[in-house]
Amino acid sequence: MSTVGQVINCKAAIAWSAKAPLSIETIQVAPPKANEVRIKILYTAVCHTDAYTLDGHDPEGLFPVVLGHEGAGIVESIGEGVTGFAIGDHVVPLYVPQCKSCEYCLNPKTNLCQKIRITQGNGFLPDGTSRFSKDGKQLFHFMGCSTFSEYTVVADISLCKVNPVASLEKVSLLGCGISTGYGAVLNTCKVEAGSTVAVWGLGAVGLAVIMGAKAAGAKQIVGIDLLETKFESAKFFGATECVNPKSVKLAEGQSFQSWLVENFNGGFDYTFECIGNVHTMRQALEAAHKGWGVSCIIGVAGAGQEIATRPFQLVTGRTWKGTAFGGWKSVDSVPKLVEDYLNKKLLIDEFITHRYHIDDINTAFDVLHKGESLRSVLSFEK
Amino acid sequence: MSTVGQVINCKAAIAWSAKAPLSIETIQVAPPKANEVRIKILYTAVCHTDAYTLDGHDPEGLFPVVLGHEGAGIVESIGEGVTGFAIGDHVVPLYVPQCKSCEYCLNPKTNLCQKIRITQGNGFLPDGTSRFSKDGKQLFHFMGCSTFSEYTVVADISLCKVNPVASLEKVSLLGCGISTGYGAVLNTCKVEAGSTVAVWGLGAVGLAVIMGAKAAGAKQIVGIDLLETKFESAKFFGATECVNPKSVKLAEGQSFQSWLVENFNGGFDYTFECIGNVHTMRQALEAAHKGWGVSCIIGVAGAGQEIATRPFQLVTGRTWKGTAFGGWKSVDSVPKLVEDYLNKKLLIDEFITHRYHIDDINTAFDVLHKGESLRSVLSFEK
Repeated sequence: MSTVGQVINCKAAIAWSAKAPLSIETIQVAPPKANEVRIKILYTAVCHTDAYTLDGHDPEGLFPVVLGHEGAGIVESIGEGVTGFAIGDHVVPLYVPQCKSCEYCLNPKTNLCQKIRITQGNGFLPDGTSRFSKDGKQLFHFMGCSTFSEYTVVADISLCKVNPVASLEKVSLLGCGISTGYGAVLNTCKVEAGSTVAVWGLGAVGLAVIMGAKAAGAKQIVGIDLLETKFESAKFFGATECVNPKSVKLAEGQSFQSWLVENFNGGFDYTFECIGNVHTMRQALEAAHKGWGVSCIIGVAGAGQEIATRPFQLVTGRTWKGTAFGGWKSVDSVPKLVEDYLNKKLLIDEFITHRYHIDDINTAFDVLHKGESLRSVLSFEK
Repeated sequence: MSTVGQVINCKAAIAWSAKAPLSIETIQVAPPKANEVRIKILYTAVCHTDAYTLDGHDPEGLFPVVLGHEGAGIVESIGEGVTGFAIGDHVVPLYVPQCKSCEYCLNPKTNLCQKIRITQGNGFLPDGTSRFSKDGKQLFHFMGCSTFSEYTVVADISLCKVNPVASLEKVSLLGCGISTGYGAVLNTCKVEAGSTVAVWGLGAVGLAVIMGAKAAGAKQIVGIDLLETKFESAKFFGATECVNPKSVKLAEGQSFQSWLVENFNGGFDYTFECIGNVHTMRQALEAAHKGWGVSCIIGVAGAGQEIATRPFQLVTGRTWKGTAFGGWKSVDSVPKLVEDYLNKKLLIDEFITHRYHIDDINTAFDVLHKGESLRSVLSFEK
């Protein structure tokens, strides 16, 4: 029996409030309206941004909400006016949309399509309403994706079609972390062959940065983390060496960044902060090489926190920048990243360290918080 | 009678200590050693960096010292091994040298030659000694230039030969401020035609930024200053409009930068801070356009002061950078800037608002502090 045009009752992980476990319940998902697509999500991964909101760190976080923004699935039905998708298409939802018509989409310098920014930030689809409810009570959308539901509805500009040959379990990870780290290197910083690179934080994003740096031909890639258990995978992805800041013997009054500058040839051509800590953001900037070093912020800091440095650091030639979704124009690029994966230019399988059923989603958050997982992929299989 | 090989007794403005007026006295200038050049300075301008040190704001400032780093003159004699200069050459001393052999000189991304950085910072020529003394008491060099003396000695990598057709009074100004502002636009930021630009601080550096932005074809150039008397010259150099932050009516709780973002189409493609105030540095960064705005720090902040912002500003696509001497590879570039001046592509005359004899140097500092001058040029004529 076709579900097209019907409200679907399906399983979802609801975040009823901040700082509480997710609750697996049956929700109602309305059919897609104009320029929307309803998707059967087969796989979703858990990312730090989900945890950040669930833990109440985002002052603009809305509840109750269906979280999740790294997912993949199959088009179940399309709304009026949708021309780019058909039932059965394999798709990846995109929290950075690409409308191809706004000022941002038309500017080659940015990927930050602003077309639906406000409604997305308010937890709605572009028409200002939600397709999710639980027994009549409205649930908010999250980042335009809400992949923690067996069915979700997204704007058609927040979605891309991918090669159906590719495993949906694997390509679900291209919805955020891997694409972000990899693109920070290739798009935002355009790291050149022969460069030296340092990476703060060896989670999935940091490892994707390392993978990108290796692909770019960097000659030295230094991974930095307090958890030495992460060093093996960092080296697998391409780190030439790893440093635990706590194991370094600093001179009296010496900062970790000045130790790096002294011990790594004046600092690095490119540094990447993948933690979300304003202190390591400063370290990364100040460990960039005088004259030409570029430091890129990828991690998301706590609300209200600020970065600081002496302006002299910039006047003497360092550049401070940041990236969102790795600078990829999302609709155009994610399908290409899927091809790169199929052509073995991009690793994905190696990021999946844990697999759970959606019923065990809270365990996936636990291993994320403990730093034990790179990515946990959740399936909705019965 | 030739002075070559002799100690020269000449007039100089000595800074005996911080926070005291300069003292015009006769000093002794030793002949140039190997790879050094002794210059008869005809003109020198007064720059904020001189005032910064004289006012005691530079914790590394050394006294007694011969200040001055914007100057021009004629080669009086050359030391052993000097091949690039001959007696009688018209020259401009360069506080950023260009050795053409160090790691920095070989890197096209930077102009910050490091060859003699340490000795220059210590107030000496590259061999670690001074050529200046007053009745046997050593005086320090300043920024490798020390143009507040009728005769000075510089390293041959800290000097360039310029077209003798050009007025030495005019080209003295290319030693710092004009080149810095102009180059920040053309080299450091590579502003494109059609860009929007905002400039904080309408002194000589800020006006040179405006001149550069106009040369680059910027479509909108907004000058920002608390002194509205500066608006006329800003418009002369190319500002399309000027804003006095104190005259702006802000909404409750609104910052000046958010007012700019709201009233100038989402912010500017490029912003330049030419004041040296960490608060306006933050304003300039946050008034850069989301997605692609670049903010460049040119002003020198007080010792120990820090810049700050929320990392979200960078993650959403703004870039924070800085410039020193406008990114010009000095020896190669300043002679070309002189040609641009002769070809009327670059304005210099209009920056000279005051002329004094060296004996009146303290008056030149007074008008600088009062914001009344763009540049005061001092002559050593008898």
